[in-house]
Amino acid sequence: METTTFSKFSAEFFGTLVLVLMGCGSAVIAGADGTSGVGLLGISFAFGLSVVAMAYAIGHISGCHINPAISIGMVVAGRMKAGEAVIYIIAQVLGAIAGAGILYLIASGKDGYSLAGGLGQNGYEAGSPGHYSLVAGFVAETVFTFIFLMVIFGSTSTKNINGGFAGLAIGLSLVLIHIVGIKVTGVSVNPARSIGPALLVGGTAISQLWLFIAAPILGSILSAIVWRVMLEKN
Amino acid sequence: METTTFSKFSAEFFGTLVLVLMGCGSAVIAGADGTSGVGLLGISFAFGLSVVAMAYAIGHISGCHINPAISIGMVVAGRMKAGEAVIYIIAQVLGAIAGAGILYLIASGKDGYSLAGGLGQNGYEAGSPGHYSLVAGFVAETVFTFIFLMVIFGSTSTKNINGGFAGLAIGLSLVLIHIVGIKVTGVSVNPARSIGPALLVGGTAISQLWLFIAAPILGSILSAIVWRVMLEKN
Amino acid sequence: METTTFSKFSAEFFGTLVLVLMGCGSAVIAGADGTSGVGLLGISFAFGLSVVAMAYAIGHISGCHINPAISIGMVVAGRMKAGEAVIYIIAQVLGAIAGAGILYLIASGKDGYSLAGGLGQNGYEAGSPGHYSLVAGFVAETVFTFIFLMVIFGSTSTKNINGGFAGLAIGLSLVLIHIVGIKVTGVSVNPARSIGPALLVGGTAISQLWLFIAAPILGSILSAIVWRVMLEKN
Amino acid sequence: METTTFSKFSAEFFGTLVLVLMGCGSAVIAGADGTSGVGLLGISFAFGLSVVAMAYAIGHISGCHINPAISIGMVVAGRMKAGEAVIYIIAQVLGAIAGAGILYLIASGKDGYSLAGGLGQNGYEAGSPGHYSLVAGFVAETVFTFIFLMVIFGSTSTKNINGGFAGLAIGLSLVLIHIVGIKVTGVSVNPARSIGPALLVGGTAISQLWLFIAAPILGSILSAIVWRVMLEKN
Repeated sequence: METTTFSKFSAEFFGTLVLVLMGCGSAVIAGADGTSGVGLLGISFAFGLSVVAMAYAIGHISGCHINPAISIGMVVAGRMKAGEAVIYIIAQVLGAIAGAGILYLIASGKDGYSLAGGLGQNGYEAGSPGHYSLVAGFVAETVFTFIFLMVIFGSTSTKNINGGFAGLAIGLSLVLIHIVGIKVTGVSVNPARSIGPALLVGGTAISQLWLFIAAPILGSILSAIVWRVMLEKN
Repeated sequence: METTTFSKFSAEFFGTLVLVLMGCGSAVIAGADGTSGVGLLGISFAFGLSVVAMAYAIGHISGCHINPAISIGMVVAGRMKAGEAVIYIIAQVLGAIAGAGILYLIASGKDGYSLAGGLGQNGYEAGSPGHYSLVAGFVAETVFTFIFLMVIFGSTSTKNINGGFAGLAIGLSLVLIHIVGIKVTGVSVNPARSIGPALLVGGTAISQLWLFIAAPILGSILSAIVWRVMLEKN
Repeated sequence: METTTFSKFSAEFFGTLVLVLMGCGSAVIAGADGTSGVGLLGISFAFGLSVVAMAYAIGHISGCHINPAISIGMVVAGRMKAGEAVIYIIAQVLGAIAGAGILYLIASGKDGYSLAGGLGQNGYEAGSPGHYSLVAGFVAETVFTFIFLMVIFGSTSTKNINGGFAGLAIGLSLVLIHIVGIKVTGVSVNPARSIGPALLVGGTAISQLWLFIAAPILGSILSAIVWRVMLEKN
Repeated sequence: METTTFSKFSAEFFGTLVLVLMGCGSAVIAGADGTSGVGLLGISFAFGLSVVAMAYAIGHISGCHINPAISIGMVVAGRMKAGEAVIYIIAQVLGAIAGAGILYLIASGKDGYSLAGGLGQNGYEAGSPGHYSLVAGFVAETVFTFIFLMVIFGSTSTKNINGGFAGLAIGLSLVLIHIVGIKVTGVSVNPARSIGPALLVGGTAISQLWLFIAAPILGSILSAIVWRVMLEKN
């Protein structure tokens, strides 16, 4: 039986919910301090392993994009119809908001919790964990998304005989990107992942949200073009 | 030759023994401090890698549930008979108790060791590592088990051509859940894993045990229903 | 062409060399402190990833035992001839000594280095990193080797259709065992790995060496028996 | 359709760019301190996961060498023509320089950043993170490259039926090598990875560059010879 659009929508919704709840949750609940918390390395694994887990859970249903930049890149690469991408992106954004909401519900169960401590949102300048500039943040998000999409295009290519490893390779590449980039922007490479926490946290997270929509989409489009022109011509 | 019920019982017994001995053992022996111990990230890997190891060791014998919530979820999803699940759950609980016992035997070989330091038991409020509330604990255990079962249903689905990766995906999703949740409840998502240490430690661990039986079972049942209704209809 | 005995001998020699050089090297060079060094988690990954690396490098040549306890367990399980195991064990012990020698050569290139700081040797009581007793050490080494062999028997069983994952599962189970056990004995589960550093360090490492030969072999034999009697009867 | 030389060149260029940007970037941006940064373990994962990511992204295009020592080893092992290796090496060096350049662009977006803090370059004596001697550095780089190539030759051998795991095994072996060796030289085992940052940083990084070209090439050639003579004779 054909996988229905409803199943795909549900898969993208739950998948993005898990990514935001668990990825941002690792930062909010478990902590960036390497002594008493899971540290930056632990947070990096949380984001990446969310993708590994979801790739093998829902990959056969929706392809497990759980990221608007991936769906847009797939359209540019000619692997997906624009109409379907719109449905995917709606599911992803709704899932991200739901994930952020559940995270808030759990996190607020600790005495003295305040939303002012953040919900794993992304940012630059004052909003950057390491106080990196807007330019550094924009370049980083664009380049990291470019690399992320390269791994996605290559590992899921029909010319790649090791397709079963795609979920692992893609998830571990997200671990990698977080290891390098958390101090710059907190790492988005995924507009939905940024929108979810920003809507609940508000303030700077909202005013800086444009960068985490524009840069990942730019990186994704560039990656799709470079892939087709330089790496896998048909 | 058909795998016998005795072999399956033995596999579930030893598998759960390993999960409790090694998972809880990492917390008790190696320590949650990231400077002198393995830290929360190390403990997270210990629980998850126990599942990876057992999945490829005994998965072909019993399916490697080593968790009553999984066996119950499999019954609800129509993939297992209730009678067989009962046998599995008995083996799992006995294995968990044996694992906690061996852990106590090793841990007590250190001068000054006291059971008051705990045996990796789960808890909320006073029993929560980060002093999270009962509600936060219940929501977290329910949602985390829901996610855990999603990965299990999807990665072992007959429609998923990458079934060989299931053990890795499931185990790594348990790493993920621990990274996020240790500070909330110590993470159960597995009634047997909670029962083992609680029986030896007693006190609060026993009086709070109900949550770590009820919430994982609830999360598992919800996941089975959502899976069949929204994600993979037959 | 048949793989020659010389090739198998060479594979076991180099494989064990790598395990000792890199595993013990992580402790000696990189350090157990989680702030300035790689920490206990890093050391755990070093031992386990040595096995992952070697499993896919030489597994098709010799089976990648690189551990006398495994070769003995394979004989007890009826999967290897005793005569061939003797050749394997000789290669493993020589490789372990060579690995410890190369490690000494590199480590001594740091000003102020002294062999008194150790070379990653195993121990109990005064020789235990966490001052665990002889009994705790013996139980731990026996149980850990029992578990390690369970993973090996199961993941390489002809009844297991996911045999390609064996190297990964076995290596990650060694990561797991080190996470839990480093503070108890430094973790051996492998007589060759203990003999190499002990011969160079001398003293307590030599006088306590018997335990790291006896306990892993005992655990291995018990695992082979339990596997055949309880888990996979023919 | 035959993969074109241009596609292979592009793949090696981008692959090496990613390795240098992300590997060195983890050290420069995220930091070697295990409390506030990702620590040595995080840096080790960054280098190794760059290889895992690229192996599954571009492995089917160029074989994903992204390292002149690998291309030279492949020539010595009779698996690649010298002419093609020259093209690969040019792409790798250019990619490494581009990667170091992008890293500088991002890193300099932080207030108070100075190139004097380094760009992840390799070194010995005064340039060694742990002040290891020239001899220790040379032995370490030679032995580590020897081991790295062993994993590559074995995991990609036509006699190895688990070839799909090669990217994972090779990348994880690079994690391993970094865990052990960062304090010795910062770990190169890859002349291109050393050339990129050195050209931007200058000074000692340039005057010590010879070692990180000579030792990896020596280790690679030795590994190719040992592999053919001792491990896999034809």
